Amino acid sequence: MNFKLLTASALAIVLGASVTVADSHADKAIMEAIKARQGQMQLYSHNLGVLGAMAKGDVAYDSAAAKAAADNLAVVSGLNAMTMWPQGSDSSSVEGTRAKAEIWSNFPDVGAKAGALNAAAVAMAGAAGTDLDALRAAMGPLGGACSACHKAYRSR
Amino acid sequence: MNFKLLTASALAIVLGASVTVADSHADKAIMEAIKARQGQMQLYSHNLGVLGAMAKGDVAYDSAAAKAAADNLAVVSGLNAMTMWPQGSDSSSVEGTRAKAEIWSNFPDVGAKAGALNAAAVAMAGAAGTDLDALRAAMGPLGGACSACHKAYRSR
Repeated sequence: MNFKLLTASALAIVLGASVTVADSHADKAIMEAIKARQGQMQLYSHNLGVLGAMAKGDVAYDSAAAKAAADNLAVVSGLNAMTMWPQGSDSSSVEGTRAKAEIWSNFPDVGAKAGALNAAAVAMAGAAGTDLDALRAAMGPLGGACSACHKAYRSR
Repeated sequence: MNFKLLTASALAIVLGASVTVADSHADKAIMEAIKARQGQMQLYSHNLGVLGAMAKGDVAYDSAAAKAAADNLAVVSGLNAMTMWPQGSDSSSVEGTRAKAEIWSNFPDVGAKAGALNAAAVAMAGAAGTDLDALRAAMGPLGGACSACHKAYRSR
């Protein structure tokens, strides 16, 4: 084992951690807003995971569970997100986010993409409880709405 | 600066990180469910923060912003949380959560406390847009519903 290398990496981690703490102290409200929107994304991811596992056949189709996950997506995508995207919370201003600065110069397009996600989630909520075919048919537009926004506004 | 001490701490961080990664590989689905419910908590915290700042007078009362935050709380507290609390996701089974094992042996009470939170959030949604006095009056029951569950089921 190369202890010299390990020590160097470990030091880099310690120094990196200090930088992050300093940044978060710089604007607590901004870091907190970022955490909130990332919380929203976790709820998307979790409920999409439930539907995706059924769509792929990894988990048996369960009408009630599918409907519950889809209803969750419909309401979470309908949240008022105004306070979660403050100016200065982009990836070029702070660490801990992949949100591109372009979001704040393209609000009409961002709003349209958010509306498209909500529409696709509402359509899924209407389909998921019917049967597996209906669930699968609604997955494409829903996944497409997620990635449309990620491609345009999330850095890699 | 004591480099010997710093190196020891740094190594501890590296080793600690490895342990956490190993744990999360042990059951990815459980760690993901924990992240999702913590996401829900972040959304509570964020929107409560908006209302709390107005209640305390740190931020000027804004009827539309107050109503938006309260509506968010009402829908987020109404999510179907079934898949976010799998068996084995308590603080004695995995790291990264403060959820006590008692949750899984007291589901009727946990459900009642979750219902009380949703009722308090719906009441806030009906009050927050009216005026600052109505918002303030709804804060007590809402904060009380949060802490009732935390006191019983979240480790310190």
